[in-house]
Order: sequence, then C-alpha cells, then structure tokens
Amino acid sequence: MAYIQQHSAELPTPVRLGLIGSGWMGAFHGESIARRVPGAVLAAVADPNVDSAASVAAQLGTAKVTADAADILADPDIDAVIIASPARFHASLIAQAAAAGKHVFCEKPGAQSLEELDAALAAVETAGVHFQIGFNRRYAEDFQSAKKDLAAGIAGQPQLLRSLTRDPGTGSIPQAARVPAWTIFLETLIHDFDTLNWFNEGAEPVEVYAVADALVEPSLREQGFLDTAVVTIRYSNGAVAVAEANFSALYGYDIRGEVFGSKGMVQAGRATETAARRYTAEGLSADTPRLNVELFRQAYTDELADFAGAVRARRDGVPPSSGDFTITPGAADARRALAMALACIESVKRGAPVAVNETAAV
Amino acid sequence: MAYIQQHSAELPTPVRLGLIGSGWMGAFHGESIARRVPGAVLAAVADPNVDSAASVAAQLGTAKVTADAADILADPDIDAVIIASPARFHASLIAQAAAAGKHVFCEKPGAQSLEELDAALAAVETAGVHFQIGFNRRYAEDFQSAKKDLAAGIAGQPQLLRSLTRDPGTGSIPQAARVPAWTIFLETLIHDFDTLNWFNEGAEPVEVYAVADALVEPSLREQGFLDTAVVTIRYSNGAVAVAEANFSALYGYDIRGEVFGSKGMVQAGRATETAARRYTAEGLSADTPRLNVELFRQAYTDELADFAGAVRARRDGVPPSSGDFTITPGAADARRALAMALACIESVKRGAPVAVNETAAV
Amino acid sequence: MAYIQQHSAELPTPVRLGLIGSGWMGAFHGESIARRVPGAVLAAVADPNVDSAASVAAQLGTAKVTADAADILADPDIDAVIIASPARFHASLIAQAAAAGKHVFCEKPGAQSLEELDAALAAVETAGVHFQIGFNRRYAEDFQSAKKDLAAGIAGQPQLLRSLTRDPGTGSIPQAARVPAWTIFLETLIHDFDTLNWFNEGAEPVEVYAVADALVEPSLREQGFLDTAVVTIRYSNGAVAVAEANFSALYGYDIRGEVFGSKGMVQAGRATETAARRYTAEGLSADTPRLNVELFRQAYTDELADFAGAVRARRDGVPPSSGDFTITPGAADARRALAMALACIESVKRGAPVAVNETAAV
Amino acid sequence: MAYIQQHSAELPTPVRLGLIGSGWMGAFHGESIARRVPGAVLAAVADPNVDSAASVAAQLGTAKVTADAADILADPDIDAVIIASPARFHASLIAQAAAAGKHVFCEKPGAQSLEELDAALAAVETAGVHFQIGFNRRYAEDFQSAKKDLAAGIAGQPQLLRSLTRDPGTGSIPQAARVPAWTIFLETLIHDFDTLNWFNEGAEPVEVYAVADALVEPSLREQGFLDTAVVTIRYSNGAVAVAEANFSALYGYDIRGEVFGSKGMVQAGRATETAARRYTAEGLSADTPRLNVELFRQAYTDELADFAGAVRARRDGVPPSSGDFTITPGAADARRALAMALACIESVKRGAPVAVNETAAV
Repeated sequence: MAYIQQHSAELPTPVRLGLIGSGWMGAFHGESIARRVPGAVLAAVADPNVDSAASVAAQLGTAKVTADAADILADPDIDAVIIASPARFHASLIAQAAAAGKHVFCEKPGAQSLEELDAALAAVETAGVHFQIGFNRRYAEDFQSAKKDLAAGIAGQPQLLRSLTRDPGTGSIPQAARVPAWTIFLETLIHDFDTLNWFNEGAEPVEVYAVADALVEPSLREQGFLDTAVVTIRYSNGAVAVAEANFSALYGYDIRGEVFGSKGMVQAGRATETAARRYTAEGLSADTPRLNVELFRQAYTDELADFAGAVRARRDGVPPSSGDFTITPGAADARRALAMALACIESVKRGAPVAVNETAAV
Repeated sequence: MAYIQQHSAELPTPVRLGLIGSGWMGAFHGESIARRVPGAVLAAVADPNVDSAASVAAQLGTAKVTADAADILADPDIDAVIIASPARFHASLIAQAAAAGKHVFCEKPGAQSLEELDAALAAVETAGVHFQIGFNRRYAEDFQSAKKDLAAGIAGQPQLLRSLTRDPGTGSIPQAARVPAWTIFLETLIHDFDTLNWFNEGAEPVEVYAVADALVEPSLREQGFLDTAVVTIRYSNGAVAVAEANFSALYGYDIRGEVFGSKGMVQAGRATETAARRYTAEGLSADTPRLNVELFRQAYTDELADFAGAVRARRDGVPPSSGDFTITPGAADARRALAMALACIESVKRGAPVAVNETAAV
Repeated sequence: MAYIQQHSAELPTPVRLGLIGSGWMGAFHGESIARRVPGAVLAAVADPNVDSAASVAAQLGTAKVTADAADILADPDIDAVIIASPARFHASLIAQAAAAGKHVFCEKPGAQSLEELDAALAAVETAGVHFQIGFNRRYAEDFQSAKKDLAAGIAGQPQLLRSLTRDPGTGSIPQAARVPAWTIFLETLIHDFDTLNWFNEGAEPVEVYAVADALVEPSLREQGFLDTAVVTIRYSNGAVAVAEANFSALYGYDIRGEVFGSKGMVQAGRATETAARRYTAEGLSADTPRLNVELFRQAYTDELADFAGAVRARRDGVPPSSGDFTITPGAADARRALAMALACIESVKRGAPVAVNETAAV
Repeated sequence: MAYIQQHSAELPTPVRLGLIGSGWMGAFHGESIARRVPGAVLAAVADPNVDSAASVAAQLGTAKVTADAADILADPDIDAVIIASPARFHASLIAQAAAAGKHVFCEKPGAQSLEELDAALAAVETAGVHFQIGFNRRYAEDFQSAKKDLAAGIAGQPQLLRSLTRDPGTGSIPQAARVPAWTIFLETLIHDFDTLNWFNEGAEPVEVYAVADALVEPSLREQGFLDTAVVTIRYSNGAVAVAEANFSALYGYDIRGEVFGSKGMVQAGRATETAARRYTAEGLSADTPRLNVELFRQAYTDELADFAGAVRARRDGVPPSSGDFTITPGAADARRALAMALACIESVKRGAPVAVNETAAV
C-alpha cells in the first residue's frame, strides 16, 4: 500500500444523544440523528415499551436500550437527550435531565401547564444546560426565507399575520380522540403560535380569542375532542394575527405562514410536493405534500443538527455561529407559545377574549 | 447502569468508497458520502494534487490519502470508487477500476470518444462490476415525479420533448475557456440528452441538428469555446426533442424538462429556491436557485445512496429493490448520451443534421 | 350598391340606464355601461356636482345630465338606475327608484342601518322591480370558478373559510379619514362578508368577533378611523370564517378567498397582474395587480351586463337564463352582509363576540 | 323633465368596418367589433356563403349583407375592412381593398407566397392606407408585459428564445386534413415566428431548420398533412430561437414565449384558465385554457380596437398615441414571418437548414 497518509482522521468527537420516547415521532427523530445529522450519534433509546425502544435501536444501530429514562440520564457517555415522550411527561423529564447535567431537546409542548413548565425551565437555568424546544417549522427553508426577509424589514411593521396547520390526520379521528381534548391548542396550534411569535419578534401576544369545534367528527364534541379551531391574537405592537388548524385535510399536510405589514407581505408554505406539473384533459394537476415527516424532513434534520451543534459548542467551548436572525427556539419561546395555548383553552370555555397574561402570570 | 440491552448494534457493514479526484465536484461527492449517505464510508481520497486530497480527507474524517488512484484500486478494504477526475481520464480509470474488481461510479461523460468508452465498458462487463454514470438529474424529486407520471402513461405517446440547462457559471468565462472547446456538449448538454432519453425511454435518438455559438463571450469564438447551444433531436418513435444550454444565466441555475404527448404534458424544473414569496411596492419576488450543489443537493446524495445500496446488495448477495420505473443510469445510458454529444459536435462542424449512428458506430 | 340585404338589423332594443352619482366609481360604472356592456345605453347621468355629471356624460356620449336624481327617476325613457352616490343616500334612492318603477342596481352597502335597508327593500318588493347589489367579486372569473367547484361539492362541507381585502389605498389615508369611521366594515369588509356568505351558501352567519385598529395611520385612531380589521365569523353550519382588511397594501390590490372543507379546499385570488414572469440577478419577479378597476375590470363589466340582461328579460318577458349556481347578489345578500358589518361595529365597541341577529333583528 | 343638458352627445363618429369572411374566426371578429370595441361599428358582412354572412349580421345587428366582397369595397360608408376569408384569398383582397381606399386588417398569413404578398403590400403602399396583420398574441397582456420588459432591457441581449403553440384542435384531425398540407407553418407557426421577431426586435431571422411530422394522425403523413413541428432559427444578432407546434394538445390551448439573454429571462404564457385552485385527495388541480377565443378574447378585442383607433386617427387627422414599445404588426412583420414559414417548408423538403433570404428574395 502506498497511501501518503494513513491515519485516524481527526474529526471532532461526535455528540452522543439519548432518545427518550420511541413512538412515531421519537423513532423519526432517532432516524434523523442516526442517519442524517453529521457529528451526532444515537447512543441510547429509552421507552417504557422496551420492545419499541429495542426495535428502533436495532434499526438504527444503537447499542443501548432501556425501559427507564433514568438510565440515560445517569449515563456519563451521553451528552444530551431528545425528549419525545407523551406531553404529560415532558416537564418532569426536562427537569430531571437538567439536574443530571444533560442538554435538552424537548418536543412541544414543554409542559401542559405554566407551573410545570416554569419549574422545568428553572431547573434548566440552574443547571446551565442548553435547552431547545421542537418548533421545527423555524428550520423549514421557506419559513427561514420569510424570516430572513422579515428581519431585513421587507414587510415593514407587521400589521396582519397568519399561520395555519391543516393536518391530513390518520384517517382515524376516533383514535385521535384518545389523545387529550385540547390537543388542537397544546400540540398543534402551539406550532402556529410560535411561528407567529417568531415572525413578529419583539412583540408580545396580549390577548387571544379562540373558536373551536368538532366539525370533522361531531360525535366527539361531547367528549371534548375538538378538531377545528381559529384563534385571533392581538400583539403588543398592534399587529393582529390569526392561527387556524384542522385535523382532517384530505389533500395533505398544509402549513402556511403570512406576514403583512407597512411595506409589504411575505409568505411561506409549500403548495405542492415537488415542482413537477401534469397537464391532461382534466387540466393542471400536481401532488400535494402528505406526511409532516416528508414535508419537513429536512427541517426535522436541521433542528437536530442545530441542537447537536450547540451541544458540541458547549462541550468544546466554542461559541455556536450566529446568523442574521434568531432561529433556535428556547425557553422563552416554549413558554410564550404555551401561555397562548392555555389562554385559548380558557377563551373557548368562556366564549370571550382572554388576556394572555391572565393565564400566563406566574 | 441498568440498560436492558447494551451491545454492538448489528447494522450492515458500511460500504467503503474511494474518491478519485478531489476537485470541486469530487470534494462535494466526498462530503455527500461522508455526511449524507447512510451506510457509506469515504475510505480514501486520491488526487495528483495531494494537498487537495489531504484537505478534503481532513475535513471529512477520511483516513487515507494518496496522489495515485492506483493505491485505491489496490486496496482490498475498498469496495468501490467514485471517479470525479477531469473527463479525459474517465475511460481509463473506469477500465482500471473494473480490472481491479471495484464497482464504479463515474461522473459524466464516461469518456471523450466512443472508442474509449466502449473499451472501458467492456472492462466493466468482463469484470462483472456495477457501473453507474453521474446523471444526477434522474434523482431530483421533480424529475422523478415526472418520470413516474410518464411511466404511468400520463402524457401518452411522447411527441415533443425539451430539456434545458442554464448555468449561472462562475462569472469568469475566460477561465472557463481553459476547459475543452466542446464542453457545452460533452459535459453540459450530455445531462439534457440523458434526461430526454430517460423521459423517452424505449426510443433511440436517430438524428441531431446542433447550433452553437459564443454569445456570452464572443471573443472566445475563435478559440472554439462555445457558451450557447440548441439541439434538435429526432427519435425512433417520431418524437422531436430540443435541448438547449447556456453558460451565463444571471438569474441562477435553471434546469427544466418537459414532455408533451398524445395525452398530455409533464414538466419538471424548479423556478424558485423555496416556496417563500415576497410582495412589495415592486411587486412579487422570490429567490431563484443558484449553485447546482444547492439545487441538486438531495439528488447528488440520492444518486450516491443508490450506488452505495447497489454495491452493498452485490456484496451481500441481496438484489437491490426495484421501483416503478428505471432510475439508475448505467452503461447503455452513458453510451447513448455520449453518442449524441459527439454527433452534435459533428453537426456544428457541418452545419447540417447528423445521424447519431454515423458517429456512434463501433 | 349590390348588398343582398340592406335593412335595419333587428337587435333587441337596448336597455337604457341612468347613472346616479358620477364620482370615481360612478364614472367607472358609466364607462363600463357605455363601452363594454352590449345592449345597454348610458342614457343619463345625475350628480349634485353637475359639472362632474356633465364631464362624465360628455366623455361617454350620454345625452342627458342633471343635478337631481329625480329627473332620472321621472324619465319614462329610462329602464333602470345605477346608484353610485355616497352610501348615506343609498337607501332613500333605492326606495325612490323602486317607487318610480325603475329597476335598481345599487353599490354596496345598501344602507347604513338595517332599518333603512329594510324600508328600501320593502319598497323594491312592493314595486316588483329587479334589485342587484354591487358585490362585484362574484363576477370575477376566479371567484366564479371557486364557487362552481364549491357548488359541485369539491370541498365537501365547509369548515374553515377566509376572505381578505388588502387595498393599496390612495397613499393618502388622512383624506380617507374624511370618510365615515366604520368604512372598513361598511364599505370594505362587506365585500368579504358577501364572498363568505356566497361560498358558504345555505348557512347563516351567527356570531362575529371583530378586532380593528388604526395601524397604518395611528394618529387617526382617536377620530375613530380604523384601517386594519380582522373578523371571526361563526356560521350556522359550524363553519368558522375569517375576514380581514387593511387600507394600505403597498404591493397592490390583494383580494383572496379560500374555503376548506371535509373533502378539500378551493382558493380564489390573483397574485400577479399577468402570467408574465421575469428572472434576473435579483431572482424571480412579476407585477402585482394595482387598482380595483384593473383587477376587477371584467367583473365590473359582467355585473352590469348581468343587471342589464335581467332588466331586459323583465322588459321583454323572457326569463333570464339560470346557471349552475347562484350569482346575482340581491336583497337578502345585501341585508345579510350589512347585518354582519353592523354586528362587527358593535363587537369592536364591546371587545366581545356579538350575535348577528342581535343587531339584525327587525 | 328637468335635465340640465339634453342633447346629442358629441362622441367621435364611429369607425365603420366591413367584414370579409364570416367563418368561425370572421364571425368572432365581427362579434368583437360589434360588442366589445368602443367606437367601431360592424357595418357590413360579406361571404360567398351568404347565409353564413346573413346569420352573423342578424346576430350582431349589422345592416348590410352580401355574397360579394366587392360590394363592401365599393361602399363609401365603410372606412376599413377586416379580411378573414380563407388564406388563399388574402393577398388579392388586400390589394383590392387598398385600391378601393379602404384601410386593411388582414388575418394571417398575408398571403401564401412572397410574390403575392409583395404585390398586395405594394398596393397598400400606393394607396397609402393603414395595414395591420392579425398577429393577435402581441395584444395578450402577458406577452405585452414581456415585451415591455424586453424593451426596458430586463433580459439584456437576447441569446435563446422560444415560442410554442399547442392547439387542442377540434378532436377531428382528419377534418383538419382538408386544410392545406403546410398549415402548421403558414397558419400556426407564423404566429410564433412573429412573436420571436417581435421579442427579438432589431434582429433579422437568418436561417431556419425545420422538422415536421404527422405524429397525431400518422395516416395523414402521406397526404402531407403535418401536425407536429419544431423549428430552429438563427437570428442576425446571434440569438437562436426555437418554435414548436402541435395540433392536438389534450390539455388545452398552450401558448408560451420565452426570451433568455445576457441579463435574465422573461416569460409569457398562461398555464391556467383562472387563478382559482383546487386541493383534493388527488392533490392540486386547476382548469387549463381551452379555445383560443377564450384565452385570447381580450387580445382579439384589443387588436381590433388598435386597428379601429388607427383608422379613426387617419380619418380625423390625429396621430395615434404611441406607447413605450412597438405593438401594431404591419407590412414588414407580415412579410418577415411569411418568409420564415416558407423557408421552413423548404427546410422540411430538403432535410437541411435553409437561409431565410433564399426563399425571401424578391
């Protein structure tokens, strides 16, 4: 052999991540880490359903499997955790992970009440660990393009904003009914609230008025499962935003954002799956995006790459590179969006506008 | 520690690839392999400019570096090679790699003459190795969507086809002039020829008529460097295709394909970088795609993932999964497109149509 | 001369229309009638500003001019009137015209209160004349296409609707401030309300919640002039709609409608002035629609052609042809939209949702 | 009655036009004049099929009908003629009309040979009458927008151009076969040639290479009826253009133009009938334009309004207003495009490129 150099190449030591929760979304995050995030290793998977954890680990070449997240938190070889368990466990897992000195990426929502969230975020602050919340839309290329334009002042002062989520669902709303009643606010519209807050950066949400109903599956109305909602939000800078969501968009996964302001408008949102177009005797047609993990595949990868990069920077003492505008959603973002979701629930109950700080006060 | 399982996870052994040529495109392929192709390892880099090879290897964590591609070919730890050297070396490298029992991914063109290419492909066939040519557009999601529709008969019998390449260039055409005179046919339009052949699968290109000129940089006309070309192609099924290229598209990297037939039309090509849109006092605006490695980033990854998958399937004796339609561009595709490019050069010289088999005969 | 036939061709006698109000919109309606509506004649123009009326008449070849609309109402040669005076005169002019046996086309709003409107519509009913309100968007080709799809059930049961008006304004909001404070609801959003009612045909608006502010020209807030508004509307079929408006869209005249339902979504609204596109070093760009009389030029013509056709059908005893879906906006449409606008005003005053029938009761 | 003014309004005397040829296109032009061109009157209709002429006249309220175009030419009350007879009569009708002192609007082509055309245009020049050829695409709003951008230098120096015609046809190509064999060049692509010439104003077409075949209806190949053609055109400024046509576009009427140059690209062409969009379980869909008289309805009106305006300006001694760029297609445009069509026919016969001036020399 005549290689001029033949040695261990000196790449940075990979970041070692532990996955907590190996359900549908957890498994996808695991796959992103193992296969698509350079410099990150999926080191362990925890799930009370240990067969699920083992299955994910086997597919991804992950060496360690446990039923108990505490094993991951106690493992000195693991730098950080990805929390993808059911939402009701998020807050305590954040707090435990922080106490164990692990950096934390947590799927939204950060908690189901502000009290819980505040306790968790206090633990994060005390431990000095890095915290990122799973608002993945910030990493979608079209939303980033819009944000960049907004940061550059293209739209001027925001006056009207819109964000929407139309979810194709599983075709099985009754199944969905087993999830908590307020899912549409706590787990779906919370994404839209974050998009609006990010697009309207610098302003605070002041008041919300929410309308919600069970239009897809009216039989679930009595059980409190709502599948359609519209929210009007007043911001401290006068801007008025509308967020809307529906759980049964037959045409696919439709996520859009729009900001109208004193100088113009920017829009994000992808109407079709690819740029390909068909023209037949029936006219123009094109495929529409379906699963969120297809539409946002790259965004899901990029949010984890951002997290891995931040963890590495902390570990290696290198400041992470900062861009032209804020991307990484952190503690304040998690809290602001949750406060809005909770105010919406109260607004639906009252049938009246609700001040965000009424429910958000600590 | 209380992990339920703690063991070496049983992932398939990665495919080990050697990169030959670490110029701009080679370095990008190396990065794709090292960072974005699951199950592949960039095991070695060869370049006569060994500093370039070392630099690429260092960035990508590749252990082996050499000035001589023969080192890679002789290395039993390497399964396959990626040939990204200048085009004039392609044919002999293909032949040598095949003779060394390495599977071969080669950037286009496979050779600069049909004689050379036929010799190289004969070596591939004799050795029984897998061969893939770098027609990356087949892996772009919109071109795949169009191909899928064509395979499903959406457009009916093809009658009119179009493929175009508008390259933003480097802003430095005189530099480009140092590349061979017929680059526009041999290295650029060869992509379009393959797209047309793939879209019109089952038909053979019969005759070409090519017009070419130095319109971007007229001063280079005498040196024979042509920057603008239009080609008309007659196919055996009667379809007529047009391919066009230009080396200085100020608005970005514009790659489109279109097939019109007895039942309709399909189009591929991405007009804007993302789905984001701006509306200002100047009207609507959006960013356009720029570098090919941005526009086709995923396509470049996917062509290498396809190659790695095929190499692994050969190694492990598992047949690669086959899809609804042909994707992987192989020996016959490399030859067909090269024959067209050579016929175009002859057509420009004669100022007349030229039968493809006139230059393609062996 | 050797003409085979040479005679007075037997075209139907034109419909003779009198224009009441020759301001900007009145003059445009006059021009549409005189130049673009076959079978209609602009027979007279009335305006207290008789110079304005005379100027319009002179440009359009109209023979009769008066300062007093009563002259037109008393003229037996006139079949019908177009009311384009300031809104505060609409109701009494409708009533007078009906009493004089003239068919009536009235610009929106039909009145400024429901009491006035009901009196006017009672006069219409008593007189048995034809009544059309100026909801021109129903005649825009894209809104008609959407309506046709909705009537065919493409979107299924409506669940979420949206209509918006972004008006480029005159660049002179202070001037706008001389119009009544609630213009944004009574004269602008009333269009959106009608679009939503038409798209959600068969359902009744039940409750509105309106937010409005002076964001374009905050100094006018105290004078009550509002330039930005968002309205949430609950319909009797459970659908939730959002209407929004703003008086200073720098990028042009942006009118959109969207209906999302159990089977899909339909959208109307034209993003660019023409299908032409530019690609330059700055990316993609295109011109956006500007004046409403440009964007809706054909729609304005077609609404008057519809009116003229209905008048002719009444006169000649021929039933007007009916299409696949309802187009002509009549008395009930005028009332429904006005009731919503009035409920919005009340909602802004109260800062709370308001039942439409609370203000709409007669 | 108390009208302040009651008098004959002083509108300009209308232009009185005679229609020669009342077939499908002639009847449509007649309707445009009678109903959509302000200031023009359809004064007479001539057609050897006098029943056809009488039927058109009756529908449009035209008083005079004749089997003999000479009656119109001899009528002192008629200012100008619209020639919409079969193409083989165009040249002699132009000459006769000019000799009779009538201004002439003639559908394309101006003639079927350059000799005939030159004779006809000489008569026009001798008589000093106004001449316009029916290249209606110049009046389409998107083509005008593109032309305006080109005139402003947006695309820089043209390098690559494209124009295409995809005609949905009548679904009855055998019927079409009764029209002359070279229709695709003389009556269809002649539109594209004019578009290219107009977009590349200042340059002359130098050489064409045409490929044509009977792909839609191969059985008609022997009779010489060609339904598919592609033409490459070299211009005096080095630009290379491609024109293509097909007579059976199942998806509708598809007319596009594109100019790529040293600074950018402009595109014209309307992909969908309206801006409305549908999203269903099948994805995105929209209607496509169908009949040319729908797609170009306003363009057909505007070309006749331009003609009527020019006739009025001549009559009244007022110079017609001139715009930012050339619109009205005249004698030179008619000749240039015809010369290209004839050179294409020769190119198909020879299977080789043909210099335009080879067939165009007088």
